[in-house]
Amino acid sequence: MAEIVRFGVSMEAELLRAFDELIEKKGYTSRSEALRDLVRDALAAQAWEEGEEIFGVILLFYDHHKRELLSRLTEAQHQAHPHILATLHIHVDEDRCLEVIAVRGPAKELVELADRLRAQPGVLLGRLCPAGTIGRL
Amino acid sequence: MAEIVRFGVSMEAELLRAFDELIEKKGYTSRSEALRDLVRDALAAQAWEEGEEIFGVILLFYDHHKRELLSRLTEAQHQAHPHILATLHIHVDEDRCLEVIAVRGPAKELVELADRLRAQPGVLLGRLCPAGTIGRL
Amino acid sequence: MAEIVRFGVSMEAELLRAFDELIEKKGYTSRSEALRDLVRDALAAQAWEEGEEIFGVILLFYDHHKRELLSRLTEAQHQAHPHILATLHIHVDEDRCLEVIAVRGPAKELVELADRLRAQPGVLLGRLCPAGTIGRL
Amino acid sequence: MAEIVRFGVSMEAELLRAFDELIEKKGYTSRSEALRDLVRDALAAQAWEEGEEIFGVILLFYDHHKRELLSRLTEAQHQAHPHILATLHIHVDEDRCLEVIAVRGPAKELVELADRLRAQPGVLLGRLCPAGTIGRL
Repeated sequence: MAEIVRFGVSMEAELLRAFDELIEKKGYTSRSEALRDLVRDALAAQAWEEGEEIFGVILLFYDHHKRELLSRLTEAQHQAHPHILATLHIHVDEDRCLEVIAVRGPAKELVELADRLRAQPGVLLGRLCPAGTIGRL
Repeated sequence: MAEIVRFGVSMEAELLRAFDELIEKKGYTSRSEALRDLVRDALAAQAWEEGEEIFGVILLFYDHHKRELLSRLTEAQHQAHPHILATLHIHVDEDRCLEVIAVRGPAKELVELADRLRAQPGVLLGRLCPAGTIGRL
Repeated sequence: MAEIVRFGVSMEAELLRAFDELIEKKGYTSRSEALRDLVRDALAAQAWEEGEEIFGVILLFYDHHKRELLSRLTEAQHQAHPHILATLHIHVDEDRCLEVIAVRGPAKELVELADRLRAQPGVLLGRLCPAGTIGRL
Repeated sequence: MAEIVRFGVSMEAELLRAFDELIEKKGYTSRSEALRDLVRDALAAQAWEEGEEIFGVILLFYDHHKRELLSRLTEAQHQAHPHILATLHIHVDEDRCLEVIAVRGPAKELVELADRLRAQPGVLLGRLCPAGTIGRL
C-alpha cells in the first residue's frame, strides 16, 4: 500500500468554488482526487520536456492496399522493438486501418520513431501521444 | 484507386530549402507526401474544433489493486459501448496497467467519456488523444 | 481583499515528493501557490473548450514590405475592434515585424479573427494564444 | 525581394477538395499561401523541439495590489533583459492586469523565465506562447 500524507492548502474562496464546479462536472468524488490528477499531469509534462522515459502510443491511419506498406511498417516496428510494447489493429473500413502502437522510451526517440512510421507512403495520419512517465506516479 | 490530381505551388526559395531539410530529417520520400500529411493534420485540427466525429484513443494508467476499479472501468466502458472499438491492455509493472481504448465519436462526447474514466479513484493518468476525422482523408 | 479558505488534501507520499521537487525547480514558494496555478490552468482549459469569453494574444510575423499588407491588417483589426485591446509592434529585422495583438472575446470569434489575419499574403506566421478566462480567477 | 520557386504537388482529389474548403473558410486567397503557412508551422514546431532560438510572448495575469509583486516582476524581467524585447500592459479591471512580454531566445531559457515569473505570488496565470523561429521563414 502506498503511504498517504495529508496537508493543508489555502485558496481564494471564489477560485475554490469554480474548481468545485469543475470537478463535479468531470465526475470526481473528491478535491484530493482531482488535485492529484493535476499534479500527475504537471509531472508528465515536465518529464516530456526533459526527455525522460515515457509511456505513450503512436497512432497510425493507413491504407492497407498501398503496395508493401504493411511489410515496411512491420519492418520499421521490428527495428524499434525495444520501444514497442504491443499493437492494436482496428479495421476502420474496406481500405483503411487504425493502428495503435503502445510505446515506451525516451521522448526524443519515440518522436523519431513516429516520424519514421508516418513518412511511409500510404500512411495518412501519424501521431505520438505521450501518456506520461511512470516512475513517479 | 483514389484519383490523383497535380497542381503547382510557389514558395520562397529559402523556405523551400528549410522544408526540404525537414522532410529529409523526418524520412519522407517526396515533398508531395510531406505536404499531404500537413494538409491532413490541418483538416484533423479543424474537425476537432468543429466537433465532428473523430477517431482516437483514451489512455489510462491505473493501479489494478484499487478496490473495484476494474469493474467500475469495465462498467463505464460498456455504458459507452457505441464509442469504443477495442481495448489494449499492457501490464506495466506489478501494480500498474496502461489501458489503450480505441474510440470513435463526436469530439465532445469522447472528451466527456475520458473525463468520466479518469475521475475514478485509482486512475493515475487519463487522456484523450485525437487521431483525426476519417471522412475526408 | 479576496476571502481565503483552507482545506486538507491527501496524496501518496511519493507523488508529493515528486511534486515538491517540481515546485522547487519552478521557483514556487509554497504548495498552495503551485496548486492554485494548476487549478487556474484547468479552469482556463475548460473555458476554452466551452467557448467562454477569454483573454489572449494573436501573434503575427509579417513582412512589412508586402504591398498593402499594413493597410489590410489595420483594416481587419478595425473591423474587429470590439475584440482588440491593444497592439505591440516589434521591429525584428529590416523586413520583418512581430505584432502582438491583445484580444478579448468568445474563443470561437478570436480563432476566426486570427485565421483572417493570418490568411493575408505576406503574413508568415499567425497564432492565437489563449491566456484564460478572467471571470473566475 | 525573396526568390520564388515553383514546383508540382500531387494529391488525392478528395483530399484536395477538403483542403480547398478549409482554405476558403479560413480566408486564404491561394493554395500556395495556405501551404506555405503549414510549412512554416512545421518548421516552427521543429525549432521548438530542437531548442533553437525562437520568438514568442509570455502572458501574465496578475493582481497588481499584491504586495511588492510589481517590483519583483520588474526585477525578474531586468535580470532576463537580453531575452525581453518589449512589454505591453493592459488594465483588465480594478485589480487585475494582463502583461504581454515579447521575448526572444532559446526555447528552454524562455520556458524557465516564464516559470520564474509565474511562480511569483499574486500571478494568476502565466504562459509562454512560442511564435516560431525567425531564421528560416
